Amino acid sequence: MEHQLNTLKVKSLGIDTYYENIVFMRSDCQICRSEGFTALTRLVIHHDGKSIIATLDVVHSELLQKNEAALSDVALKRLDVKDGDLISISHLKPIESLSDVRAKMYHKKIDEAAYYRIINDVTDGLYSDIEIAAFIAGCAGDNLDLDEITWLTKAMIDSGSKLKWNGKIILDKHSVGGLPGNRTTPIVVAIVASAGLTIPKISSRAITSPAGTADTMETITKVNLSIEKIKEVVNKEGGCFAWGRLARLSPADDILITIEKALDVDSPGQMIASVLSKKAAAGSKYVVIDIPFGETAKVRTHEDALKLQYYFKTVGNAIKLNIEALITDGSQPIGKGIGPSLEAMDVLSVLRNQKDAPNNLKEKSLMFAGALLELSGKIEKGKGISEARHILESGKAYDKFERICLAQGAFKEPTFAMYKTEIKSKIVGNVTSIDNRKLAKIAKLAGAPQSPSAGIYFDSPIGTKVEKGQTLFTIYSESEGELQYAVDYLKSVNSIIKIV
Amino acid sequence: MEHQLNTLKVKSLGIDTYYENIVFMRSDCQICRSEGFTALTRLVIHHDGKSIIATLDVVHSELLQKNEAALSDVALKRLDVKDGDLISISHLKPIESLSDVRAKMYHKKIDEAAYYRIINDVTDGLYSDIEIAAFIAGCAGDNLDLDEITWLTKAMIDSGSKLKWNGKIILDKHSVGGLPGNRTTPIVVAIVASAGLTIPKISSRAITSPAGTADTMETITKVNLSIEKIKEVVNKEGGCFAWGRLARLSPADDILITIEKALDVDSPGQMIASVLSKKAAAGSKYVVIDIPFGETAKVRTHEDALKLQYYFKTVGNAIKLNIEALITDGSQPIGKGIGPSLEAMDVLSVLRNQKDAPNNLKEKSLMFAGALLELSGKIEKGKGISEARHILESGKAYDKFERICLAQGAFKEPTFAMYKTEIKSKIVGNVTSIDNRKLAKIAKLAGAPQSPSAGIYFDSPIGTKVEKGQTLFTIYSESEGELQYAVDYLKSVNSIIKIV
Repeated sequence: MEHQLNTLKVKSLGIDTYYENIVFMRSDCQICRSEGFTALTRLVIHHDGKSIIATLDVVHSELLQKNEAALSDVALKRLDVKDGDLISISHLKPIESLSDVRAKMYHKKIDEAAYYRIINDVTDGLYSDIEIAAFIAGCAGDNLDLDEITWLTKAMIDSGSKLKWNGKIILDKHSVGGLPGNRTTPIVVAIVASAGLTIPKISSRAITSPAGTADTMETITKVNLSIEKIKEVVNKEGGCFAWGRLARLSPADDILITIEKALDVDSPGQMIASVLSKKAAAGSKYVVIDIPFGETAKVRTHEDALKLQYYFKTVGNAIKLNIEALITDGSQPIGKGIGPSLEAMDVLSVLRNQKDAPNNLKEKSLMFAGALLELSGKIEKGKGISEARHILESGKAYDKFERICLAQGAFKEPTFAMYKTEIKSKIVGNVTSIDNRKLAKIAKLAGAPQSPSAGIYFDSPIGTKVEKGQTLFTIYSESEGELQYAVDYLKSVNSIIKIV
Repeated sequence: MEHQLNTLKVKSLGIDTYYENIVFMRSDCQICRSEGFTALTRLVIHHDGKSIIATLDVVHSELLQKNEAALSDVALKRLDVKDGDLISISHLKPIESLSDVRAKMYHKKIDEAAYYRIINDVTDGLYSDIEIAAFIAGCAGDNLDLDEITWLTKAMIDSGSKLKWNGKIILDKHSVGGLPGNRTTPIVVAIVASAGLTIPKISSRAITSPAGTADTMETITKVNLSIEKIKEVVNKEGGCFAWGRLARLSPADDILITIEKALDVDSPGQMIASVLSKKAAAGSKYVVIDIPFGETAKVRTHEDALKLQYYFKTVGNAIKLNIEALITDGSQPIGKGIGPSLEAMDVLSVLRNQKDAPNNLKEKSLMFAGALLELSGKIEKGKGISEARHILESGKAYDKFERICLAQGAFKEPTFAMYKTEIKSKIVGNVTSIDNRKLAKIAKLAGAPQSPSAGIYFDSPIGTKVEKGQTLFTIYSESEGELQYAVDYLKSVNSIIKIV
């Protein structure tokens, strides 16, 4: 009888709450009344031997009948129910790992088992968004030590699928980000794969930046590949440019990143765990990492860059990855484009050896491709960059790039957005510094990365001699509203490009 | 034209998300398509000169027409719109105070202006629940120093209404909580008001405990009083037992507490700011604070208790409150009832001078009433407790209690819940210690405080000589399911009452 009282009929309302399980119930249904449930209560929902935890939103209207409950899309999927199915509701037993989260909020060190508990529960969808936010805040700043970062990384690796490559030596490349336009990865992949090595590049989308590698490559080819498709492309061409979501590598990371993005934070510990868990789960053995530092980059001081470098190497070592982390110049954008399509254009111009290709993007790509060639043992120390240059300038890298894109299912040219406005200098002088953050913010306000062709074409690197009225950069946008919004912000801040 | 494209018609779905503004929009409506909005995007919604910020939940169904948007109940109220009203949507400008929240997540000290920015934005409903969770996590543990607690307190005081009392000396009393059944406040108020002093007690509901003073008093009288009603009752009787919500004293605190409760955390800095902001906003000048400490109380060590005492006095001093903070025994429950109705029964038995009234509740109440009589200067030092005892034992305090309740609009007897189970000792021996936390958890699982008559009747304080089969405590519940759930938990944990 208790069980019948406890049963409701599923109604699908098509509500997308991203990763959070939400259940909608009438405030006057028998369950809310008998159990005293109110908004934000966490409940367990059962169907056919499966169960999920969901947060209650209470409905005071005829949207639902008294015997009905609605579930958010992700909850329907996780519980595997559809309209008319019967679900039962029970109280939530305390989730043990939330004690570990509270310990982290109180700045205590927690152990390996605690990280496994937390990450398994996050992966299983047991946490509400506010609980994930509390965990992220507890891990922010320097609150994770090296042990904890290692444990978090291991727990994240084991939370999802792992790729195996039958004895092949797997290479990979990553940038910690924060530098607009720094899109070396597609070029590095093309060069390294041309050299006969294997580099199954699985990238993320932007977290807080105007573009991630996956966003950029999506303007040229398909990136939303299954594990099977990734294997097929890599076995054929030696490399790929894939978005990692479908591969379910370190799926906990995808959930955490959603909330990190909403909070606009990207902490060192979470970042290292996020990067290295994806690499290890993808089966990589040799990884080069780009750590750009500069006053307005993500990493602001040389000291912080050295610390990250040390963390990457140490944690990498603990999980059996061979890491080369290079500290690079983060004082200004790399290339000219900022935003998915605009960065894709830069990539193509370098690969095609066009005369107007941005030289800093080319040279930085060669440096990383060279480091990988050497790290793999394929090329002897000191000769990596010249070998990479040969592969790029001979056109082999572009051929390889095109073949990989076609193997992924498409090759198209990126396009400019419909709306644009040129920002011109009001004075004569020399460019002495660039505010990367504000530049990135303008690109984001203009719509990047959701609007792929939105962003900035940047034409005034440090050292440029500027005439009055000369264009410093151009803002592109897919809607007039967004363009106006970017321009409004630009007007509200101090000089983004310093001219003396 | 941009403006018309940007307009949707409000549809009210009656969805209660507590304090969070949620907007529901079709994924294929012109705004989501043109602006690239996806789930969790934060938006600004405008109507008739007003605006609110809301989090987007995307709808993939016919729940809404393409030209419609739904708002959660709190958002409808804050924006003051109803079905059919036209709203327009725009991008969210960066909320400046979220940079301050990030600084707190990174464990930096932030200044007074930053606390005012954060608290004003929280009060205005600009924060999403995950942003509030990040702020709470950033303030957890020892992450706020004395300056910061003072600034947070001031910002919270200024976030809402303030009561003024025309030159009267206003007294108040508070317990930091964490000790089951510790319901001295109603008794203290009755005694102090009988003495001719003014004590407008405005209480909270439970945050993480089985009952708060407001929950308890609601089983006897009406506590949901407007500011006008509070003033009327206090001017007539010298005291009241009110829930603070309608008074809008420190309203930011109410919002923060909702999320603290969902996260099951209650940090020192937030706690001091929460308590003192309510007191100061209520116009209090003299405040006694109960700091129970014990191994399983909220405050676990004498050192922590001393620190809290120092914080209360120092922050109190900075905001011109005269504080007496008493460190008390937190090794076991006070009184016999745990849960709103059961605690109310204890309160009534003490006030009625019943023979079976719990003595520890009576003596503790006298200690605090005595401290307040002395702090106010009305009674000379050293004579407070005997004066309080005289007022209580003469029956004057009970008369006053009844008059206050009637002035508030009701006086009814609290009742027992329908379902109960007695927990008996399996051995002979002496009770040597009590686990307060587990006892409180059982009371909560049994339904307290949402189910007011649920909880525990506790009958085995430390020192009790126990026979085999003797009842240690009784669990009360308003539903069979909750009772079973409490019993299941009890079976799963180690001894809650240690008998040697």
